[in-house]
Amino acid sequence: MIGVFDSGIGGLTVLKSLLAHFPKQDFVYIGDSAHLPYGNKTPEAIRNYGEKILNHLKNLQVEAIVIACNSASSVFTEKTWQGIPLFNVIDPGAKTAFESSSGKRIGVIGTRATVNSQAYTKKIHQISSEVFVFEQACPLLVPLTEEGWTDDPVTNLIVYRYLQPVIQQNVDTLILGCTHYPLLRTSIQKVMGQSVALIESGNAICKAIDETACLKSENPNRNLQIFSTDFSEHFQVMATRILNGFEIQKIAEIEL
Amino acid sequence: MIGVFDSGIGGLTVLKSLLAHFPKQDFVYIGDSAHLPYGNKTPEAIRNYGEKILNHLKNLQVEAIVIACNSASSVFTEKTWQGIPLFNVIDPGAKTAFESSSGKRIGVIGTRATVNSQAYTKKIHQISSEVFVFEQACPLLVPLTEEGWTDDPVTNLIVYRYLQPVIQQNVDTLILGCTHYPLLRTSIQKVMGQSVALIESGNAICKAIDETACLKSENPNRNLQIFSTDFSEHFQVMATRILNGFEIQKIAEIEL
Repeated sequence: MIGVFDSGIGGLTVLKSLLAHFPKQDFVYIGDSAHLPYGNKTPEAIRNYGEKILNHLKNLQVEAIVIACNSASSVFTEKTWQGIPLFNVIDPGAKTAFESSSGKRIGVIGTRATVNSQAYTKKIHQISSEVFVFEQACPLLVPLTEEGWTDDPVTNLIVYRYLQPVIQQNVDTLILGCTHYPLLRTSIQKVMGQSVALIESGNAICKAIDETACLKSENPNRNLQIFSTDFSEHFQVMATRILNGFEIQKIAEIEL
Repeated sequence: MIGVFDSGIGGLTVLKSLLAHFPKQDFVYIGDSAHLPYGNKTPEAIRNYGEKILNHLKNLQVEAIVIACNSASSVFTEKTWQGIPLFNVIDPGAKTAFESSSGKRIGVIGTRATVNSQAYTKKIHQISSEVFVFEQACPLLVPLTEEGWTDDPVTNLIVYRYLQPVIQQNVDTLILGCTHYPLLRTSIQKVMGQSVALIESGNAICKAIDETACLKSENPNRNLQIFSTDFSEHFQVMATRILNGFEIQKIAEIEL
């Protein structure tokens, strides 16, 4: 069983990649909606909330934990949590972007917390200090996605404004450094132009998990459970919409 | 001393009215930034966070508590908290709107939590069931304000879109049912037209506190303390900007 953790619904885009790639794995997803969004909170606050969730996942005896939230990934950078392999979205995203970038000019968009941490820049510069990296915070993109305005002229306008400084840097690759942003992929691709490669973390994480070979048990009748720390109708609607095509065995509130 | 409580910075618009109206009162403001925003959370979650803050204010021996947050006001409707007079933003806002409305057609804009609670409609109908009330959720206006885009074409566009259904109802009065919204007053007034009266809660609350005559002690050298449950530079910058003109004695993080 794999545990997946995010501040809300954004990590469901990562979960969707994982579900497709590991069809015989059980999954438990915890969205910390009670403290959503992490993007404007301090590292101390994020660590405090995150540890409660990681402890709970450990008690469920998961074999691996995916931190499907960039803001939390910039705080939880360790490779294991009390013996359990921990996968954040930043390391595989940075690696994939580096491999994909022909001109070694990479842009990163994310929440204020992610961008302030400079986690992507640091990680890419660990691979090669020759790469140019430009990070841009886009605080409104999460609320726009949560509002469901994913294919909308107003969203295009805001995406356009946020991306202007990125475009001016002539990047050839753009990391979608927030798990909500794949839901805005069409709009972002339109503004950046077709020649710019957009990097999502989902597929990169699947590859990283494969490489560690940490998963031992399989279940042909896979069980998918989804929990929220502040369950609402809105959460259920969004979860069902994003995970369209995958059967959810249980979706409920969890108290931590 | 008066205690003022909000989920973040929005309540500072109410605090500003209070500071001007009660120049000899000490104030302590607590912004629960660690759990911000309340607007998309359930009533149970909001009550849970709010009780911790109300208990803390009680221990500080405040003479009155102002819940300067509409989402929390729709949950904490009681008139006293363990013996301390409790003032929410909804009751005075509803009363002022009723008195101001000539045609008895009132609009209300707020977060999803406030609008789902129908707190304003219920309160206005307690005064008179003859009034037509139309409520509209505007979830993006808080993040737009927090981003500082208060005087901006994109904000005008989003305000315009949210307010179309309200305009179609021919209201003569509009309650700004979220303490962030006074920061968007210019844009909202432009879209609604000059003939529509905009109601803010700040002044209405001052009047309500006067009427109960619950304040006994005065301090000619007024002390103003501001706390956040997740203190950041952004909080400090916004607080100083909104309270422009008032001296802050202390601004810091608080753990609850």
